[in-house]
Amino acid sequence: MSDDTPRTPAELRRACRDGRWDRPTAGVAGGSVQANLVVVPREAAFDFLLFCQRNPKPCPVIEVVEAGRVEPACAPGADLRTDLPRYRVYRDGKLAGERAEVRDLWRDDLVSFLIGCSFSFEEALSAAGVPLRHVESCSNVPMYRTAVATAAAGRFRGPLVVSMRPVPAAQVALAVQVTARFERVHGAPVHVGAPEALGIRDLSRPDWGDPVEIRPGELPVFWACGVTPQAAVLASGLPFCITHAPGHMFVTDLANASLATGG
Amino acid sequence: MSDDTPRTPAELRRACRDGRWDRPTAGVAGGSVQANLVVVPREAAFDFLLFCQRNPKPCPVIEVVEAGRVEPACAPGADLRTDLPRYRVYRDGKLAGERAEVRDLWRDDLVSFLIGCSFSFEEALSAAGVPLRHVESCSNVPMYRTAVATAAAGRFRGPLVVSMRPVPAAQVALAVQVTARFERVHGAPVHVGAPEALGIRDLSRPDWGDPVEIRPGELPVFWACGVTPQAAVLASGLPFCITHAPGHMFVTDLANASLATGG
Repeated sequence: MSDDTPRTPAELRRACRDGRWDRPTAGVAGGSVQANLVVVPREAAFDFLLFCQRNPKPCPVIEVVEAGRVEPACAPGADLRTDLPRYRVYRDGKLAGERAEVRDLWRDDLVSFLIGCSFSFEEALSAAGVPLRHVESCSNVPMYRTAVATAAAGRFRGPLVVSMRPVPAAQVALAVQVTARFERVHGAPVHVGAPEALGIRDLSRPDWGDPVEIRPGELPVFWACGVTPQAAVLASGLPFCITHAPGHMFVTDLANASLATGG
Repeated sequence: MSDDTPRTPAELRRACRDGRWDRPTAGVAGGSVQANLVVVPREAAFDFLLFCQRNPKPCPVIEVVEAGRVEPACAPGADLRTDLPRYRVYRDGKLAGERAEVRDLWRDDLVSFLIGCSFSFEEALSAAGVPLRHVESCSNVPMYRTAVATAAAGRFRGPLVVSMRPVPAAQVALAVQVTARFERVHGAPVHVGAPEALGIRDLSRPDWGDPVEIRPGELPVFWACGVTPQAAVLASGLPFCITHAPGHMFVTDLANASLATGG
């Protein structure tokens, strides 16, 4: 990283706000919890919170910021309208543009959801010695739409989306134990091996992200993915919503370690 | 128990519906999850669900049943309006009566929350050999209002309420480990020993339930309590709400064991 790479969450958020940072946030301000952002009008907020409550593995809520507020408790001084590097705006379920900030689009009835992401447990996997192929190959983790339905809530429904990491057979149990401690950020895998049982036909063709090599002696291990709630929101055809742009997350002041059980 | 004691959750619910059971549910249909009931109008449902999300230890949501529905997924065939032994009705935050059923009061805008209770982890404590003084003495567990504030959400706020069980010093760690596995029903204790640090002045004078003896060599151990959300709802002065009567819970078809981590 260059010398001007922000070192703390507050520095990163300030750089986003000032237009000095518009890149993905992977690896920035290491050790801090990064979150998916989903912003919906108040009239849809109960159903969306209930969707998250019913599907805690793919939709682990870090914090909900009520209508009329833009400063989360997990990041004092932050402004959710400006402090992410890049946003996506959707109208009637269709992408209506990408923005560096959304101040001019903000409305008093918008409720913001910060949802955990796998960066938190990947740090722990890596520390435990479990290799992360997509990191080694500088690509995005492969993600797949499954044949498993989420539990619907109001207008929100759709398939479970999973991310996949190849794990050496001897480390599968370790990978389960390490991630199981992170219930607030997807937790233990939803599936080990047998992609066909999830309705995934071809691991080399992910629905999002990039394919990764699975080497002899490795098993594909599947974790619930934060794309699940995003896909449910888009499929609902909601008149208006805002999300982060893929990979351009909100960086909180929370420590990843604080999300582990007992943390 | 007499011969006519219901043996399954469905039998117990049917007996309630038919007016053949109006007593507390402690110890009935052992092994099944029993739940607190809180019913609020839809306009307050988002704030109440958010209150539960922000305070997961005292408010572990088992299931939310949306407006227009009275049959929870955790108890197929059940009717929340008739299948509890006893209800309390509140108007403007004040008790407006106890009822054996609430069919005539039901409205299409009512949202029902089923919230976990400590019966689930008490079964596990008992199985692990941790004595339960209030069960031995056939009394209600003592509960205390603390000086610890919950995280507010909209109109809902108030103190954390805890239940207390005296645990022999040598078994405190065991009691923590056993209950920590039950995150969906209050989980690990919020405090061990030192009631004054919670703002509790006199253990012999609980705010709810009955006092229990603490013997030499025992420590008072405090768990987050499901009275917390009830107290917050009442203090909010909500125009209308319905709850179970104390001790008269909704008995689900879920197994207590299914609420343990990994279950």
